[in-house]
Amino acid sequence: MILVYSTFPNEEKALEIGRKLLEKRLIACFNAFEIRSGYWWKGEIVQDKEWAAIFKTTEEKEKELYEELRKLHPYETPAIFTLKVENVLTEYMNWLRESVL
Amino acid sequence: MILVYSTFPNEEKALEIGRKLLEKRLIACFNAFEIRSGYWWKGEIVQDKEWAAIFKTTEEKEKELYEELRKLHPYETPAIFTLKVENVLTEYMNWLRESVL
Amino acid sequence: MILVYSTFPNEEKALEIGRKLLEKRLIACFNAFEIRSGYWWKGEIVQDKEWAAIFKTTEEKEKELYEELRKLHPYETPAIFTLKVENVLTEYMNWLRESVL
Repeated sequence: MILVYSTFPNEEKALEIGRKLLEKRLIACFNAFEIRSGYWWKGEIVQDKEWAAIFKTTEEKEKELYEELRKLHPYETPAIFTLKVENVLTEYMNWLRESVL
Repeated sequence: MILVYSTFPNEEKALEIGRKLLEKRLIACFNAFEIRSGYWWKGEIVQDKEWAAIFKTTEEKEKELYEELRKLHPYETPAIFTLKVENVLTEYMNWLRESVL
Repeated sequence: MILVYSTFPNEEKALEIGRKLLEKRLIACFNAFEIRSGYWWKGEIVQDKEWAAIFKTTEEKEKELYEELRKLHPYETPAIFTLKVENVLTEYMNWLRESVL
């Protein structure tokens, strides 16, 4: 199991893309939440309201998920990265696998 | 040190279970926050408001924490998984160990 | 790439410290969000409103980031820990490196 993390300009875009990834069976679940961001962009510090999303899927789906997420994403250089899950409740892992077949 | 992540139907349930885990010295701390979720459930895509929680503890407590969290959790198939912490401020790690003795 | 996680008493302090770390080129980006916390402190369980922040940077900056964050942080024993990023979108990694030169 892995988590793929990304950020979006607003709630609507986060939920829209999350739903599309679910429909394509690239993820089993996502959790999105409001954030305040700060970052360097073209030589300036920008502070912004965004939405983060955590996409939960299997390692086998990672490559395809990156490609689809890159295609769907509105940003020029989106944050898309993976956190490895060390352990997971067995029944949850079984459900996760069945959800991305 | 590890993080154990789970999601709950609402703030009350997240805080209630978090407090019980603290009382049983299975965790040193938790951070909970509101999320918008999407997931596959019995062949349908469901979109929901939930609360996520990050439970901070030692690797030695992981097994017991999973068992207790599974027992307390209201969901049929709860998300319960572990993220490994690579490095941690020494004084925080000392405090964490003392809090789960 | 790594994530360094910490918690703060409120939004202002999270954004203030985030900005200072950006100005010192110790991080490329941060995402902060409101949380409800519970923890052991001096023999009591405390429940609080806080703000969490995720600081995104390179492994080379980790040590210096810990030192600066420890210096700036208002807490006696702040949570400061690192999560390892397994994979990251290449263009985002390039941007991240350039932002912390």
